[in-house]
Amino acid sequence: MAHAHRTTAAISHVFRGTFIHSTQKTAVQILEDALLGVNAEGKIAFIGTGVDLHKLAQAFGFSPSEVTQLTQHEFFMPGMVDTHIHASQYSYAGTALDLPLLQWLNTYTFPVESRFKDLDFANRVYTRVVKRTLRNGTTTACYFATIHSDASLLLGQIANDFGQRALVGKVCMDRNEGVKHYKETIQESQEETSRFIAELLNKKYPLVKPIVTPRFALSCTGALLGQLGAIAKNNNLHIQSHISENVEEVNLVKELFPESESYTDVYHRHNLLTDKTVMAHGCYLSDKELDLFRETGASVSHCPNSNIALCSGLLDVRNVLNHKVKLGLGTDVAGGYSASMLDAVRRTLDTSKVLTIQDPEYNTLTFEEVFRLATLGGSQALSLDDQTGNFEVGKDFDALRVNVAAPGAPIDLIQCEEPKILLEKFLNLGDDRNIVEVFVAGRMVVPFTEPVDSCTAESKSLRSLHLSTQHPT
Amino acid sequence: MAHAHRTTAAISHVFRGTFIHSTQKTAVQILEDALLGVNAEGKIAFIGTGVDLHKLAQAFGFSPSEVTQLTQHEFFMPGMVDTHIHASQYSYAGTALDLPLLQWLNTYTFPVESRFKDLDFANRVYTRVVKRTLRNGTTTACYFATIHSDASLLLGQIANDFGQRALVGKVCMDRNEGVKHYKETIQESQEETSRFIAELLNKKYPLVKPIVTPRFALSCTGALLGQLGAIAKNNNLHIQSHISENVEEVNLVKELFPESESYTDVYHRHNLLTDKTVMAHGCYLSDKELDLFRETGASVSHCPNSNIALCSGLLDVRNVLNHKVKLGLGTDVAGGYSASMLDAVRRTLDTSKVLTIQDPEYNTLTFEEVFRLATLGGSQALSLDDQTGNFEVGKDFDALRVNVAAPGAPIDLIQCEEPKILLEKFLNLGDDRNIVEVFVAGRMVVPFTEPVDSCTAESKSLRSLHLSTQHPT
Ligand SMILES: [Zn+2]
Ligand SMILES: [Zn+2]
Repeated sequence: MAHAHRTTAAISHVFRGTFIHSTQKTAVQILEDALLGVNAEGKIAFIGTGVDLHKLAQAFGFSPSEVTQLTQHEFFMPGMVDTHIHASQYSYAGTALDLPLLQWLNTYTFPVESRFKDLDFANRVYTRVVKRTLRNGTTTACYFATIHSDASLLLGQIANDFGQRALVGKVCMDRNEGVKHYKETIQESQEETSRFIAELLNKKYPLVKPIVTPRFALSCTGALLGQLGAIAKNNNLHIQSHISENVEEVNLVKELFPESESYTDVYHRHNLLTDKTVMAHGCYLSDKELDLFRETGASVSHCPNSNIALCSGLLDVRNVLNHKVKLGLGTDVAGGYSASMLDAVRRTLDTSKVLTIQDPEYNTLTFEEVFRLATLGGSQALSLDDQTGNFEVGKDFDALRVNVAAPGAPIDLIQCEEPKILLEKFLNLGDDRNIVEVFVAGRMVVPFTEPVDSCTAESKSLRSLHLSTQHPT
Repeated sequence: MAHAHRTTAAISHVFRGTFIHSTQKTAVQILEDALLGVNAEGKIAFIGTGVDLHKLAQAFGFSPSEVTQLTQHEFFMPGMVDTHIHASQYSYAGTALDLPLLQWLNTYTFPVESRFKDLDFANRVYTRVVKRTLRNGTTTACYFATIHSDASLLLGQIANDFGQRALVGKVCMDRNEGVKHYKETIQESQEETSRFIAELLNKKYPLVKPIVTPRFALSCTGALLGQLGAIAKNNNLHIQSHISENVEEVNLVKELFPESESYTDVYHRHNLLTDKTVMAHGCYLSDKELDLFRETGASVSHCPNSNIALCSGLLDVRNVLNHKVKLGLGTDVAGGYSASMLDAVRRTLDTSKVLTIQDPEYNTLTFEEVFRLATLGGSQALSLDDQTGNFEVGKDFDALRVNVAAPGAPIDLIQCEEPKILLEKFLNLGDDRNIVEVFVAGRMVVPFTEPVDSCTAESKSLRSLHLSTQHPT
């Protein structure tokens, strides 16, 4: 029988076909010939089966002729959740991958991030990254911006305009020995963070919220960390940072915070570990630190492309999950070169398989489990699983319409295949050409009308912070 | 001054713009505002610079108005060489990656390969894999087919029709405990191999040649290996097989061939290691075995996607190169899930970086070196570097026209970038949408006109072995 959500909102879409999603109990649940209704608020109103069409039509007041029927090679899956991505670093994605983390920050990252005081440049990069990630099926993104509040607000505006669910962080850092002009005083950092949060909340964007964002322990004094912990607590906000990414970093944190028991403890004692905290990487967390994550409800963002590209480390995801710590996947653009969550899925499997090569007894992740991490797991890691992550009645309809046999797309189907094979082919071989429609909170956000791209015809398009921009069609 | 090849053949194309290729000395050589002429035989007739346009036009008898000018975001690079791909396994690419090698062969591979006695099925799969790999920029492919000679001849015909340079191997195996119906008697194997070679050579395809293909030591008796070594020697043919892919396999080979000093020695004593031999994987080759590779001139095909996907091992490419053994890259479809050499490039870098994570002193491969392995290195591994691999005058023009800013493609250029950055972005982020034209021996083979794909409307299109098929337009 159908699961249903009683609400006054009218039904605005009904889809019929294969739906694939995860639940807490089942990594891949396949619903064939399912009927899913979305209401005018963008929420899932009901999920039933095709045979109940007329019953559901009567109960929810829609006409059976309005139902959108998926084709044989299509399915819906939940939109993917990128739990860690630096929107500002998208400009150099796919380059600059020849140095380890700390040298990479000084050589490539900080100089580029410092350019985001220029709102024209920020607009160009942020528009591209929001459109690209939406097209790649990222319906929810947890963004690092830069230290610049106005550019960070612009990122929030662009995400809202294009209809992406997003947490947006103005980066905080009052220490930077490598590139001295790219940092704030502690007072600036605190004041600008407060202004950024107030202004972003004041926009009342339905899907875009601020997230408190100390860059990482090495970039922040203890005093700043403490103030950011207090700001997050007083406003009940999300928090994100980096932790235990690379060996050199871990050692320097020990030196810089000798009073702390561990890297995790540095954040914990500044009230930065909460059930709304997501920490990127965590390659070198001890079991004791993972226990502290579980106790506080903080989560880990696994960024396998970046971990490999910068030679940082190999996160043992199985061990994190065994500790019952929430875990999602992140692209970590541009330490990770790809802005596609499909890449994060593939690299997560790769890392798990490399650990299996090292130890044949290792309990390798399955593709089904990694599918869950990219969707439901990510929503849990961001504490947004009451709103998104799977096709539960009452959640927002954040979904990808996938056509495995889309014309011109990279998958050749030699014969008709069952849904689980279609999912596996898509996860391993698919790309944005297979993602024919993207929905966030019931709104179709892809395809969007796209102006012809060029690296010169851009500067005209500066989006004013003060003018409300139009919705993409 | 221009390098030039004196020939009677007229110039058929001249291109002007950025050319990027490798030489023995330089992993990435960038020629800006270069002029390259291709003659009617498909060979590179000259390479000069734009300022010499009129001089070259006069010397080679072409009109400056016929020169094709690349745009700012475009470059030419050599076509990529896939040194190891199972055309027959393409039907299940992207699935069935949950078992180690020997169980994977019995469970997935052998049952599928046995279907290739059906030429209709073979036609469907082989057409798709040739078109897909061409579109992905593979101008040269070294194929494993199956034990079926007629289907293997069909693969050769399809490669020829679509214009791909290919070595095609009818697989030989007279041992198969796991799937007993998928093998030959030693006599069948020898006779069919001889027939396959004679018939394929008899077609006089300019770019498609047979390659002697014992599956691997575990699938062949010593007697068969010896006969195949003799066939290769008597006809001066290429040879391919697998070696030292996975620990279990290596141990079984030791048991099965107790008289041999090493896995490499098994092939060597059957005359299967020559300077026209390419062996896939080699993850566990000892330094002594690598010395034997160097002495015989045999090469290694590095298949990093497959090595990780099947949890086989991590090849230390640097060590192979230090032993002065020739090495190219392979997709190893479908142990490797991707039929794109760009994926092989990325996974080669990943594997090298994983080795760096394990040992920070490791001499990581650079993207420039991996670019060379995918092009010139592959042509050397297949002993085809007299014909292809880079833009040397006198070689065939096997080339990709890459547009990093192609509309609808996966790369966002935020600003105009220098050629080396364009190359790096393409290698890390590009796909077939960025490969706007593909040339093999001077003939434009991509784009081709493509019928609408569907998994049902296919069976009509059986290509008869006895009817000469038309060239794709
Ligand atoms: Zn990061
Ligand atoms: Zn193979």
